[in-house]
Amino acid sequence: MLEDILEEYKKAWALGHALALMGWDLETYMPQEGSKYRGEATAQLITLRRNEIMKLAEKVDRIDESKLDDKERGIIRVLRREIKYYRAVPKEIDEELARLTSEAFIAWSKARNESIFSIFKPYLEKIVDLKRKIAESLGYEKHPYNALLDLYEEGFTVDDADKVFSSLLPELKTILEKILSSGYYPTHHPLEDMTYDVEVMKKVNDEIINILEMPRSKFRIDISPHPFTQRISADDVRITTRYEGKDFRATMFSVIHESGHAIYELQIDPSLEMTPVGQGVSMGVHESQSRFWENIIGRSREFVGIIYPLLKRFLDLKYDEEEIYKYFNVVRPSLIRVDADEVTYNLHIAIRYEIEKRLIAGELKVDEIPPLWNDLSEKYLGIRPKNDAEGVLQDVHWSGGSFGYFPTYTLGNIIAGMIYAKFNVLEKVRERKFNEIKEYLREKIHKYGAIYPPKVLLTRSFGDAYNPEYFIKYLREKYLSK
Amino acid sequence: MLEDILEEYKKAWALGHALALMGWDLETYMPQEGSKYRGEATAQLITLRRNEIMKLAEKVDRIDESKLDDKERGIIRVLRREIKYYRAVPKEIDEELARLTSEAFIAWSKARNESIFSIFKPYLEKIVDLKRKIAESLGYEKHPYNALLDLYEEGFTVDDADKVFSSLLPELKTILEKILSSGYYPTHHPLEDMTYDVEVMKKVNDEIINILEMPRSKFRIDISPHPFTQRISADDVRITTRYEGKDFRATMFSVIHESGHAIYELQIDPSLEMTPVGQGVSMGVHESQSRFWENIIGRSREFVGIIYPLLKRFLDLKYDEEEIYKYFNVVRPSLIRVDADEVTYNLHIAIRYEIEKRLIAGELKVDEIPPLWNDLSEKYLGIRPKNDAEGVLQDVHWSGGSFGYFPTYTLGNIIAGMIYAKFNVLEKVRERKFNEIKEYLREKIHKYGAIYPPKVLLTRSFGDAYNPEYFIKYLREKYLSK
Repeated sequence: MLEDILEEYKKAWALGHALALMGWDLETYMPQEGSKYRGEATAQLITLRRNEIMKLAEKVDRIDESKLDDKERGIIRVLRREIKYYRAVPKEIDEELARLTSEAFIAWSKARNESIFSIFKPYLEKIVDLKRKIAESLGYEKHPYNALLDLYEEGFTVDDADKVFSSLLPELKTILEKILSSGYYPTHHPLEDMTYDVEVMKKVNDEIINILEMPRSKFRIDISPHPFTQRISADDVRITTRYEGKDFRATMFSVIHESGHAIYELQIDPSLEMTPVGQGVSMGVHESQSRFWENIIGRSREFVGIIYPLLKRFLDLKYDEEEIYKYFNVVRPSLIRVDADEVTYNLHIAIRYEIEKRLIAGELKVDEIPPLWNDLSEKYLGIRPKNDAEGVLQDVHWSGGSFGYFPTYTLGNIIAGMIYAKFNVLEKVRERKFNEIKEYLREKIHKYGAIYPPKVLLTRSFGDAYNPEYFIKYLREKYLSK
Repeated sequence: MLEDILEEYKKAWALGHALALMGWDLETYMPQEGSKYRGEATAQLITLRRNEIMKLAEKVDRIDESKLDDKERGIIRVLRREIKYYRAVPKEIDEELARLTSEAFIAWSKARNESIFSIFKPYLEKIVDLKRKIAESLGYEKHPYNALLDLYEEGFTVDDADKVFSSLLPELKTILEKILSSGYYPTHHPLEDMTYDVEVMKKVNDEIINILEMPRSKFRIDISPHPFTQRISADDVRITTRYEGKDFRATMFSVIHESGHAIYELQIDPSLEMTPVGQGVSMGVHESQSRFWENIIGRSREFVGIIYPLLKRFLDLKYDEEEIYKYFNVVRPSLIRVDADEVTYNLHIAIRYEIEKRLIAGELKVDEIPPLWNDLSEKYLGIRPKNDAEGVLQDVHWSGGSFGYFPTYTLGNIIAGMIYAKFNVLEKVRERKFNEIKEYLREKIHKYGAIYPPKVLLTRSFGDAYNPEYFIKYLREKYLSK
C-alpha cells in the first residue's frame, strides 16, 4: 500500500523537480522576456502536481499508522498535511491569491520606490482577507494565526511565539544597551564603504566555498538579484549570491548563509529522495542551518582567522584580523531588517510578528499598520522610520502573501543557539574541521529530512525546542565577555 | 471543441516547457552528479506528457477537419501524428528503447574510444530490432524506413531520398574533382592549427551575435560539450557553443549555425505558442535554417568582409580577407562527418542513408556494417577508414536510436540552396541588412511554425520541395566561378 503510494508519488516528485529548476532558472539565466510563458508553465505544473497529490488522498486516508516505522509515518504525515491543505482550501482561493500576489508585487515595488503606502494598501487588504479565509478554511485552535504559522513551521503556535519573544525581547534590550555603552563593537566600520572589483570578489567567494568543502559535483553557485538556495535533487543543490560592488561582507555572508541551507539539503539521507520527506522539515529549522553557518561560524574570530589571509591577498586590506572581526560584527539599531546584525535582527521580527498576529486576528486594519509599525520601531529599536519605504514597505514578503513566515527567522537564530550550546563548533572551526561540523549537523538534523515534525526532531536531538535561552547565552558570551 | 482541446493541451505544453529546460540545464549548468535524478524526473514527465496527449485523443478523433482553417488543421494534424505514434507503438517498446539507448550510449563511447565495433554491436543489434518493430507498428507504404523517416521529416520517403541522392552524388563528385584540380580552395589552411584564448574567443562570438542582431531579451548563449539550440518558449530560445582552443572557425560557425536554428524558433508566430504547431516543422527545414546562416551567409566573401576587422582586432590575424575566406572554405574529402565542408558533407550522409535503409529493410546485418561503411567511404569520398573509430563508430546517433535522422542534414543543405536561389541574400549581407534576411525567412518559413507539413510549406513558399538542383547551382557558382 505504502509502496504503491511512493511509486505514484514519483509523478508529483518529478513535477516538483521541474518546478524547482524553473524557479532557479527564472532568477538566474532566463532571458528577461521569458517570464510570461514561464509563469504560464509554472501555474500549469502546480495544478498538475496538486492533482497528482490528490490522486493519492484516498490511499493515504486508509493507511493505518500504527503499523508504520518512523520514516513511513513521516511520509504519511507530510502527505496528509498537503492533502489537508488542498481539501480545506478551495482551489479558487489559491488561484486568486496567485493572481493577486503577482499584481501586488508590482504595486509593492512601486509603493516602495515612491514611499507611498496607499499604493500597496488595497492589494494588502485583499491579501490579508484571503489569508484570513485560508486560516478559517484550514481550521485552528485558539488563534487563526496558528493555521498560517503551521504552514511554515509545523506545530508552532502563537503561544510558542509569545513565549519566545517575551523572554527574548528584554534580554536583547539589555545586551544591546551593554554593547553600545561598552563601545568595543563599532556601530559603523569604514570597510562598509569600501568598494570591490566583482571579478575579484567572485574569486574570494569561490575560495570560501573551497574552505567550506562544498561538494562541487552536486553543488553550484550563480548570481541572482536576491540570494537563495534551491534543491533540485539530493545530488543537485544550488545557491546564489549577488554583487553590489561595496561592503564585501554582504556577498560573502550570503554565500556562507546559503551554503548552510545547501549543506542541509545535501545531507538529507539519500534514500529519502523521491519521497515526501526528502526535504528540509521546516523554515525555522532550515534558517537555523543558514544562520549557524553565517553568524555563529562565519562571524566568529576563529573563522576570521581562517579567511583573513585570503581576504588580505585578494582585497588588499589595510586592517588587522581583529578589525575584520569588528567589521563582521558591527552592532547598531537600524531601520532595515536585511541590514541588521545578529543582536538587533530579532527586534525587527518582533515588529512584524505583532502586526501579523493582530491583522490575521482581525484586530488591526491594514491602514493602521504604518503608524503601528513606526511606534513598534521606536519601542524596540529606539528609532522611528522617516517614511514608509524605510518602514512598513521595506519587505517583499506580504506582497507574496507570506504571513507566518517572518517568525521562522527568529526560530532560526534560536535553534542555531541551541546547537551552539551542545557542540563545540568554534573549536572545530579553529581546527578547520568543517567536515566534523557537517557530520554533527547531519546526525542531529539533516539526515532525517522531514521524517519528524520540527518540535519532535529538535527535542530528540537537543532535548528542547524553540528555547531562546541558549541563543541569549551565545550573544552574551560573544558580545559581553570581551 | 478545438478550444477545449487547446485549453487542455496547455498541460502537455507546460510539461514540454519543463522538459526543454531540463534538457538545456543537463547540458549546461547541472552539477555532474545531478544526472541520475534528472533522468528519473525526465522519464516521469515524458510519461505524464504522453498521458496528457492521449487524454485528448478521442476529442481529436471527432474533429471534422473540413470546418477548420489552415492553422486549426495544422493543430489537428500535428496532434494526430503524435496520437498515432502512441497508439501504434506499445509503451513498452519506447521504454525498452529508452533504457537500451542509455546503456548503448556508454557502450558506444567505450567502443569508439577503443575503436572496437564489437563492443557496440550487441546494443546496435537490439536497437535496430526495436526500430524495425516501431516501423512495423507504425505501418508504411512500400518501405519500412519510410515510417522512421516520417518521424523526422513528415512525408519524406525512400523514393524522395533516392531521387535526391541519385541526382546529388554524381554532381558532387564532379564539383569536388574540379575544386581539387583547380587548387584555388586549399585542402588545409594554416589557421586550422592556430590556437586561441577562450576568453577572447567568447568576445568574438559575442560580437558575432551582435552582428546577427539576435534579440538578447529572448535569447542567450552558453557553453556545452555539443552545441545545440533549445526553444524554451516563444520568448526564450537558447543556443550553446564549445571552445576547443584551436581552429577558431569551429566555435564561431557553431554560433552562427545555432543562431540560424534560434532565429527560426524566435520568428514563429507568437500566437502559436502553447499550441502543437508552435515549433519548427521538421528536422530538414530546421537544418536548412542553420545551414543557410552558417554556410551560405557565414562562409561567404560578403560575411568575411563584415567580420574581418573584428577577427583581425581580437585574434591578431596575419592574413588578408581572401585568406580568411579560404580558411572558412577549405575543401577536402575527409573521414569525419562533423569536420566536413559543405561540398563533401552530403557524401557522408549518403553512406549513412544507404546503410540505414538496408538495415531497416532487413537486407543488412549489423556485423556487415563496418566493411560496407568502409567500402562506401572509398566509393564516395575516395578514402578508407583505417579503423572503426574513424569509420562506423564516429557518430553518436545510432546509439540513441536515431534512424532516419541523418538524411535531414542533406535536406537542410538542399532547402538552403532553394532559399538562396529565390532571394538575393548575399546582397543583403553586403549591405548588413540582416533584419531583411530574417524578415524574408519569417515570411516564407518561420511564422508558420508547424501549420503546414514540410512539403506543403516548401511548395507554397518556393514552388518546389527537396529539389537538389538549386544547392548544386549554389555550389557551382561559389566554388567553380572563381
